Amino acid sequence: MGVQQHKVSVIGSGNWGSSIARLIAQNVRKQPELFHETVRVWVFEEEVNGRKLTDIINQDHENVKYLPGIRLPDNVVALPNIQDAARDANILVFVLPHQFVYQTCEKLRGVIHSECRAISLIKGLDFQNDEIMLFSDEISRILGIECSALSGANLASEVALEKYGESTIGSKNLEVDGKIFHKLFHTGYFNVTVISDYTGLQICGALKNVVAIAAGISDGLKYGNNTKSAFIRRGLLEMRKFGKTFFGGVHTETFFESCGVADLITTCAGGRNRKVAEAFIGSNKTIEQVEMELLNGQKSQGTTTALEVHRFLQARKMTDEFPLMTSVYQVIYEGAPPESIIDALQH
Amino acid sequence: MGVQQHKVSVIGSGNWGSSIARLIAQNVRKQPELFHETVRVWVFEEEVNGRKLTDIINQDHENVKYLPGIRLPDNVVALPNIQDAARDANILVFVLPHQFVYQTCEKLRGVIHSECRAISLIKGLDFQNDEIMLFSDEISRILGIECSALSGANLASEVALEKYGESTIGSKNLEVDGKIFHKLFHTGYFNVTVISDYTGLQICGALKNVVAIAAGISDGLKYGNNTKSAFIRRGLLEMRKFGKTFFGGVHTETFFESCGVADLITTCAGGRNRKVAEAFIGSNKTIEQVEMELLNGQKSQGTTTALEVHRFLQARKMTDEFPLMTSVYQVIYEGAPPESIIDALQH
Repeated sequence: MGVQQHKVSVIGSGNWGSSIARLIAQNVRKQPELFHETVRVWVFEEEVNGRKLTDIINQDHENVKYLPGIRLPDNVVALPNIQDAARDANILVFVLPHQFVYQTCEKLRGVIHSECRAISLIKGLDFQNDEIMLFSDEISRILGIECSALSGANLASEVALEKYGESTIGSKNLEVDGKIFHKLFHTGYFNVTVISDYTGLQICGALKNVVAIAAGISDGLKYGNNTKSAFIRRGLLEMRKFGKTFFGGVHTETFFESCGVADLITTCAGGRNRKVAEAFIGSNKTIEQVEMELLNGQKSQGTTTALEVHRFLQARKMTDEFPLMTSVYQVIYEGAPPESIIDALQH
Repeated sequence: MGVQQHKVSVIGSGNWGSSIARLIAQNVRKQPELFHETVRVWVFEEEVNGRKLTDIINQDHENVKYLPGIRLPDNVVALPNIQDAARDANILVFVLPHQFVYQTCEKLRGVIHSECRAISLIKGLDFQNDEIMLFSDEISRILGIECSALSGANLASEVALEKYGESTIGSKNLEVDGKIFHKLFHTGYFNVTVISDYTGLQICGALKNVVAIAAGISDGLKYGNNTKSAFIRRGLLEMRKFGKTFFGGVHTETFFESCGVADLITTCAGGRNRKVAEAFIGSNKTIEQVEMELLNGQKSQGTTTALEVHRFLQARKMTDEFPLMTSVYQVIYEGAPPESIIDALQH
């Protein structure tokens, strides 16, 4: 590498960004030989109770808007200007809503360190014109640096409270990037495994939400645990098939990792995607109305992804090959009777 | 085969035996070219309201003791003598409590058809003197016939009500036995997949109950969905490792079948093993006392299997290789603090 200490910048400061910045700030302090003590965080500036959010974070050591009640270590430094936040960093941690990825990367061109590596904690896949891109690949392409990815059965709020959780990092370069990211993220309450299959990892993170809608439909129809577990299992198989059909380097073992079966189970047990679908069944409302009521008008990621996956498959005349994903789309968007989702299992 | 129609006998008539006899009786009627219409069922004779249980089943077409309220087709014929029930059968379906397997097989020697095949729906594994046997192998050995196995995320009561469920059949001989058993069991509401790995299938069916105890401990400690899914995932990995370490022919794909991940998910979501463990945490009672209260003194299969697996591993000095199974044993039987189960994940 040619550097003494890695300088870490976290790009994003929502609930997940703040939780992970807190964990990173703890970890870098324990490893001064590897990491610079200061963890810079780019914060989208806003006013909270008449003060700037960056000032609140830097003075009170708390992100009162997105992670209230949790103290941040004082080596977390919030910056409102993204170029100041990222300049000379060796490690960029991307943890921001997917709609901001492109504009954010554009601003980073030219200011990043020549030997910089990135990791994407961005949720979802990037659908554009019936194509699918991985956000890690897009970051890598735009900035000309390697980009790994992290995903797993972990909730921001639990990580912030130091409740035990597990996660998976997917990295092309296990020997260098994989090792550094393991040191940056792994700790007693956040158990990280590193794998090479960064593609399968990101596919799991997006498609699990579509499967959670199937689980929610099952719950809404009062189908019981056995039928619900049948949907989860078929969903797992379709996630794997999707990855292996449309991407290279997707391994079966990935689906045994935290980013695979564990995240899928927890998303189908609780979570807003499952809840929205359950409430949709028998409601005589559109999915948009249900989301308006339950999520204050935000879209649940699963419904959006179900639509995008359907368009992707339709463009390739392959909807029949993914009967569960297709049936979720038909029930949510085309008025198909919810009970017809059972047909996907009998396919 | 040299036979026109397969004669099917079901050995056992409890809740699961009665449900599956009902399904089989429906299926044979739809395929007269393959199967003899009469499905004989061996019933352990007992008196119910002053009448013999076999008479009740044959006259009223209902197993009032073990499957009340469900009508059995009139081609189900109950017989109290096991040799009468099995004589000349080409297909034996074993579905009885595991403690009766050996004595039952002994009675069948000599009366079974020369071209007979069997399938085991018996739950669990056979632990003897720190060794583990598969019940399908034991039936095969004692009777000198091939024996397949069936297991999956299905409940007897749901199958009886024709609610949609899935299951897996493991068979050494996919081309002949596998095909016949698929025709015998598969139907619209009971979706059967046939695989060759009858070993992995039976290991899943037994060890899932130990994992369900870990899930119940997690619930008892109020650990939340992410930690619980971490236990389920580690359990799945240890189930696979157990199979691959101690048996031949265990395939990773088996764990993606209904007998694998689906049955595990549903067992860890509901089920008596999970429930017993949850109630045990913080109760200041022994596991036997908890079982006495919740199960009327029956043992939950998971606690027994946890003990047997531990003895098996201890005899091989391999407890460290299976930290979750070992930790379940220590919490349930050795007074280890329940919170120590987290150590199994950090192992």
